[in-house]
Amino acid sequence: MARAASELSGSAVPDTDGRRRVVVENVRPCVDGGRFPVKRVAGDHVEVTADVLADGHDVVAAVVRRRRDGERRFREVRMQPLGNDRFAASFPVDVLGRHSFSVRAWIDRFATWRDQLGRRVEAGQDVRVELAVGVELIEAAAGSAPAAAATELRKWRDRLAGDDPEAGAAAALDPALAALMAAHDPRPHATDSDVAVPVWVDRPLARFSAWYELFPRSLGGDRHGTLRDVRGELARIARMGFDVLYLPPVHPIGETHRKGRNNMPAAEPGDVGSPWAIGAAAGGHTAVHPDLGSVADVRRLAEACTKRGIALALDIAFQCSPDHPWVSEHPEWFRHRPDGSIRYAENPPKRYEDIYPLDFESDDWAGLWQALADVVRFWLRQGVSVFRVDNPHTKPFAFWEWMIADITRDHPETIFLAEAFTRPRVMERLAKAGFTQSYTYFAWRNGKHELESYLHELTRTGLRDYFRPNFWPNTPDILTEPMQTGGRPTFAARLVLAATLSPSYGIYGPAFELVEQRGLRPGSEEYLDSEKYQLRDWDTAAPGSLEPLVTAVNAARRAHPALQTNERLEFRHVDNDMLVAYTKHTEDRGDIVLCIVNLDPHHTQSGWVDLPLEHLGIDTDGPYQVHDLLADATYTWQGGHNYVELDPHRSSAHVFHIRRRLRTEHDFEYYA
Amino acid sequence: MARAASELSGSAVPDTDGRRRVVVENVRPCVDGGRFPVKRVAGDHVEVTADVLADGHDVVAAVVRRRRDGERRFREVRMQPLGNDRFAASFPVDVLGRHSFSVRAWIDRFATWRDQLGRRVEAGQDVRVELAVGVELIEAAAGSAPAAAATELRKWRDRLAGDDPEAGAAAALDPALAALMAAHDPRPHATDSDVAVPVWVDRPLARFSAWYELFPRSLGGDRHGTLRDVRGELARIARMGFDVLYLPPVHPIGETHRKGRNNMPAAEPGDVGSPWAIGAAAGGHTAVHPDLGSVADVRRLAEACTKRGIALALDIAFQCSPDHPWVSEHPEWFRHRPDGSIRYAENPPKRYEDIYPLDFESDDWAGLWQALADVVRFWLRQGVSVFRVDNPHTKPFAFWEWMIADITRDHPETIFLAEAFTRPRVMERLAKAGFTQSYTYFAWRNGKHELESYLHELTRTGLRDYFRPNFWPNTPDILTEPMQTGGRPTFAARLVLAATLSPSYGIYGPAFELVEQRGLRPGSEEYLDSEKYQLRDWDTAAPGSLEPLVTAVNAARRAHPALQTNERLEFRHVDNDMLVAYTKHTEDRGDIVLCIVNLDPHHTQSGWVDLPLEHLGIDTDGPYQVHDLLADATYTWQGGHNYVELDPHRSSAHVFHIRRRLRTEHDFEYYA
Repeated sequence: MARAASELSGSAVPDTDGRRRVVVENVRPCVDGGRFPVKRVAGDHVEVTADVLADGHDVVAAVVRRRRDGERRFREVRMQPLGNDRFAASFPVDVLGRHSFSVRAWIDRFATWRDQLGRRVEAGQDVRVELAVGVELIEAAAGSAPAAAATELRKWRDRLAGDDPEAGAAAALDPALAALMAAHDPRPHATDSDVAVPVWVDRPLARFSAWYELFPRSLGGDRHGTLRDVRGELARIARMGFDVLYLPPVHPIGETHRKGRNNMPAAEPGDVGSPWAIGAAAGGHTAVHPDLGSVADVRRLAEACTKRGIALALDIAFQCSPDHPWVSEHPEWFRHRPDGSIRYAENPPKRYEDIYPLDFESDDWAGLWQALADVVRFWLRQGVSVFRVDNPHTKPFAFWEWMIADITRDHPETIFLAEAFTRPRVMERLAKAGFTQSYTYFAWRNGKHELESYLHELTRTGLRDYFRPNFWPNTPDILTEPMQTGGRPTFAARLVLAATLSPSYGIYGPAFELVEQRGLRPGSEEYLDSEKYQLRDWDTAAPGSLEPLVTAVNAARRAHPALQTNERLEFRHVDNDMLVAYTKHTEDRGDIVLCIVNLDPHHTQSGWVDLPLEHLGIDTDGPYQVHDLLADATYTWQGGHNYVELDPHRSSAHVFHIRRRLRTEHDFEYYA
Repeated sequence: MARAASELSGSAVPDTDGRRRVVVENVRPCVDGGRFPVKRVAGDHVEVTADVLADGHDVVAAVVRRRRDGERRFREVRMQPLGNDRFAASFPVDVLGRHSFSVRAWIDRFATWRDQLGRRVEAGQDVRVELAVGVELIEAAAGSAPAAAATELRKWRDRLAGDDPEAGAAAALDPALAALMAAHDPRPHATDSDVAVPVWVDRPLARFSAWYELFPRSLGGDRHGTLRDVRGELARIARMGFDVLYLPPVHPIGETHRKGRNNMPAAEPGDVGSPWAIGAAAGGHTAVHPDLGSVADVRRLAEACTKRGIALALDIAFQCSPDHPWVSEHPEWFRHRPDGSIRYAENPPKRYEDIYPLDFESDDWAGLWQALADVVRFWLRQGVSVFRVDNPHTKPFAFWEWMIADITRDHPETIFLAEAFTRPRVMERLAKAGFTQSYTYFAWRNGKHELESYLHELTRTGLRDYFRPNFWPNTPDILTEPMQTGGRPTFAARLVLAATLSPSYGIYGPAFELVEQRGLRPGSEEYLDSEKYQLRDWDTAAPGSLEPLVTAVNAARRAHPALQTNERLEFRHVDNDMLVAYTKHTEDRGDIVLCIVNLDPHHTQSGWVDLPLEHLGIDTDGPYQVHDLLADATYTWQGGHNYVELDPHRSSAHVFHIRRRLRTEHDFEYYA
């Protein structure tokens, strides 16, 4: 249809169909214009909105078209107008892997005509010519419809074409015809959204997971613990209700420049070294430290975990000790200094001579990428599909994007947790590049305002579509100042906050439940006698363990779907800045949980909590019950303004399940 | 460098250079991911920001690369870090037309090395090997630098390579070397932003313009006015200080179904009809109504306007009367009904039988597009380069996008004002599609809160980069209810608001300055005895004309650059909801204007206005002057909290130029 330049001076019209009058804009959700996938988990509905508009006053119609990668055909769902040119539709995602959706829109000629016909009929105008237009529209639809529908449509056509214009108009305005036409109307000059938005669908564990980290080598009592010892610990971990068991690197540990206890520059004889100094004569990233066991032990442990409903997670730390086999096999993967030596890790003036970083600017970058992906593939073959990735922010984004896509194409169940404690844009980019979950700044968000504004950022901005937070009160590297000074009440408060503010959370134990709070020195967030450099003998049966609280918190998480997503996290006003309160509810409000945490580890704090009863679907007149899932205590509340008091020496938090008053047919009241 | 799949099961690495470690995100300004251009005017600086980040802790460097369409070479400007991985740079745009910019970023190896070297030196470490690294870096830069720079660089290299590491380190850390390296350092594995952002540069009139609309046919006294009569009116229009003179359509007017006075369904003999019913035996969109004159008269008028510094604007209304030549010459450009008749304009049950819309779904859409573009080109050849486009929202977005690009490619000075009073997304899309300026909802934003929130939307959201508002208190179609009842004070207030809240504004006169406030009937926004359907004889010399106020307002706009942009519009608190106050200042704060408008046409209103003196660069201790540019009165104020009072029967508004107190060398005080 494109024509040559006009005789005056114009240039050619575009080659595309200039009759595409509908435009589609602002398709949501969408990360960076479709450059990165939106993340969902199996069972979710993707709620799509878009601006769909055309010139003039014609009625527009739109569908969301979606398919899984590899599928040839699109499935469609009709979008509904929300007003102001915004349209919405949703579709379920059940199959893991990469999907995509786009929006297709067109002028709905029949709906436009029908709308105008109705107004003409109402004004008593002669509609005979208009009915003839309708006949043409129906005939056009019948021409491209399946046989049965075409027959049906032609019956309607004949009714419009009859002698009685009044009967014809009545037929024309029949909703049954409108529905039939909506299903079979041609879509002349339809427009597709510029972008097909990719959606990555993970297994539900990607969003909702409770992690437990431990050092296997500390499980041996007075000897070096083994992977077999970990199997012995599984019953306790399962009883506490964890979903993921994460082990620091299990590989042989370098001897050269090995660090001593408490990160001393030199190891003493017998010092075990840091598990992150990977590689020794016994092997590198695909070997197991002889003192821990064998690759077969990992496989057996993964199986044992699976039987208890736990996923085993290994650590991926792409760096080498000077004794790693790659240092001699692939010297080109390391950066060399002019004197021929290999450059060790540094943050001048600090030197980490026990670690050689990999050089991602190596001429053989492609070979290095493949080798690293092969490491992941090796452990996948041993039954491990969850990986906690150490310092991903010191390796290129492009590498992660390729590697994670490469692995998950065949193994979409794989989960990668990014351990990047760094600048916001870097953490966000890693999440966009494909990391399933991300460590966060949670450990350093302790005040009420800090928590509220950080959670706002995570749950109410673009991050919600690609950045899945995993909240850790402690890690082997992080024992914050409040944790060093606040004692058991702070540990309890931080546990409840982590486990209820984020669908995924984790603790480093048994240090956590045993309230290990001794820092290396004032101002340091390192543990004293850190397991990173030595064995520890934990007495998990010691009195005062937080194990019962951990168990109760995890049980509450599993029992209450409201706690399994951050979709509807809403902070609630309390007239006391030491108390933080928030609700979560399921979409249908069938499950509502209210958490109140005392941030003060020293004093009893009390205040009045505001609840928007109507918004939560709670009867504003009668009483309702709040059942504390941690203390197993029930209170009867009334109205939207109720008193709470928390003595940190007894309990740092309430996790209330809100039970509405219901009436049976026979007018017995009960709460549910 | 891409390698075949690894022996295990991986797929190939990407073909691109995997060593591109820097990523560029969130490039601003940017409209819809670069799909539409950002708009600026000649003389502006484009302030670019972007997130630029890499893995690890290496220093990154970035430049903005920009060029005008058609230029082969890019010009570059170095970006500066703002913190948190955000970088900024700006570049001037002087030449009209389409430009584009992108961001290029890379690891700055020398800056990284220099930063680390400094820390090593400070810690007293041996840096001999590091200096050898520096020698390699400098040599690499010299290898690709121009000869003179290479010589210079090699001198530095030799200083680093000398026997004395202390002297070498001092040389290495010399800022002169850093500057030289920044200019000549190679950029290995550089990354370009995904998008090259288009920037459209208009002439300054596109942003800052005062429009005056009049009906030439009313200028004849008791006869039909002519284009020659308009020339006689130019002195008055220029004296009032207008930049653009806009005439409704000047074409022959259809006879068939011509509307009578006050939009009566049938014309009486002698009725002149609506200028928007375009086309008759005498011609169509490229003809001039015989009673107005000839095409040559348009040319002469355009010339006469130019001499007075005024741009002549014509109306582009792409629709036809039944008598338009195209109806017989190009019946395929109109929609036909099954009975063979051409479909006239309708909004059922309303019928506009004097208008045939063009059918943009015509099989010959391409021919139609060319013909319409040729209409614009025809008037460009007559010296007209400003067009007010009637109802653009009833023609396809794709058409406008093509046509405006097609015209402005050769005539970048052309200005198109979109007269679309419709839904927000439609108005926004037209602006994105290329309209230079847009009519707005201003006429219906009368309360203080309404004004503040609408201006927030226009000046603080994405709209600021592509939607240029043009505020009209009245048009021939719009006489709002407040204008019908508020009398002269409302006209004055609306004039000041329009002219100071928006860099572009317009009035329909002489109805405006003569305070024509008679509506057609209660509830209607149509004028009684509207010039759309009949001649009017205006007495512009009548006492009580607002001409002096209009003149003062336009003079203030021209004298004060602060009023020529909306970049720094800020509302100020007044403790009275009938008073609205706002400041505008130039970037250097050399010009500051404070406007205060009384929205109540009946009563004197007073209140205290808050000014953030420090932010505005005003001395917080001493007094300062506010000079009312409308009343030519001066007040001395002190502090950030001052009293104002406006009696609408004397003056509805202050437009204050704020004059700071300055001291001369000899300590005389004066205000400037």
